[in-house]
Amino acid sequence: MAGMFITFEGGEGAGKSTQVRLLQQHLATVVPPGRTVMTREPGGTPGAEAVRDFLLFGKQDLSLRAETLMHFSARYDHVDHLIRPALEGGKIVISDRFTDSTEAYQGYGRGEGNEAILSLIASLRQQTGVIPDLTFILDVPRAVARERLHARGNRPDRYEAATEAFHARVAEGFATIARREPGRCITIDATLPPDTVARAIAGHVAARLPMPQGGA
Amino acid sequence: MAGMFITFEGGEGAGKSTQVRLLQQHLATVVPPGRTVMTREPGGTPGAEAVRDFLLFGKQDLSLRAETLMHFSARYDHVDHLIRPALEGGKIVISDRFTDSTEAYQGYGRGEGNEAILSLIASLRQQTGVIPDLTFILDVPRAVARERLHARGNRPDRYEAATEAFHARVAEGFATIARREPGRCITIDATLPPDTVARAIAGHVAARLPMPQGGA
Repeated sequence: MAGMFITFEGGEGAGKSTQVRLLQQHLATVVPPGRTVMTREPGGTPGAEAVRDFLLFGKQDLSLRAETLMHFSARYDHVDHLIRPALEGGKIVISDRFTDSTEAYQGYGRGEGNEAILSLIASLRQQTGVIPDLTFILDVPRAVARERLHARGNRPDRYEAATEAFHARVAEGFATIARREPGRCITIDATLPPDTVARAIAGHVAARLPMPQGGA
Repeated sequence: MAGMFITFEGGEGAGKSTQVRLLQQHLATVVPPGRTVMTREPGGTPGAEAVRDFLLFGKQDLSLRAETLMHFSARYDHVDHLIRPALEGGKIVISDRFTDSTEAYQGYGRGEGNEAILSLIASLRQQTGVIPDLTFILDVPRAVARERLHARGNRPDRYEAATEAFHARVAEGFATIARREPGRCITIDATLPPDTVARAIAGHVAARLPMPQGGA
């Protein structure tokens, strides 16, 4: 596809939103306005946001496997209605979370197991042709993330030891993905100052940015 | 699993609900009460019915692929929360529609293509171990089905030629499934009188009914 698809991944408190914003500001200085599309998961389109609301506010407890399929339903709508058309139109699409989060959170964190999720991801790639060109996995030790979330005013974790084990499994999930797909994934030490992180990210993006076509 | 899973498939107007009811009445004379569980798709559990409502009454147009995933989300909840526990408890579960309907309607009828749906079905079977022991595909020519729907007071089709082509593709889908899985699927000529059809179905079920265990 003509455009470029960049995803940000990592646990809570890794600084994803900050880095998405800083990358957007940087790109505004190097590509024409309107060439960049920012989005997020779960959500990103009206249909996917409706599924998100159903997941977050629905009164029914779905089984874990049913919930994973709902995430993929939202993702297909997001890809079919927003990401793919934007990429085909030559845009740079930046998404705060994508498939790696499902793999890390549902597959590793909640222990659903990875085989089914990997099969869903493979099918999504095959059917839509949409695969991130570049994925930044923002990595911070859990203690740092916890401090940041606390400083932001987020309430401390509702869970105790179990949740720390959960976060450790999620981090292990992201590390495994980064090792498995080194051409796409770049793990960033997100304990560094935000501007330092942003410069590193901008450098990686510049190195892969497709040349604008025609007079764009 | 200890129980037996029977599904009914076929187009609208093939007489599925009638045959489900007649089989239930028949089973009531040969197995203890409470050993038979009737259910339907989409739906069957509170979570799956909520997904069904979302699909039918939601205001957002999901992409076709997103909609297929929603059907599978509902199905996982149905399998995880009702079908599988019932089968493990030795029950006879009878479902009005299951995976074959998704393959015939979404894959063949709406032309989504079958590869992705077959991959979802394979994954469901592998993850849950739930595969119908016996599937009755009720087959009637479209003209007969249309007459029956009309006699029932259903409004005539809202679609014209396109819909007839759609129904022809759905029928081709069911026929393909029956050829592919002859050990599980029994195609029944549903133009015969309902009692004749019911006797044929009861015979097939009796031949495969697991022996009740202990004093049940």
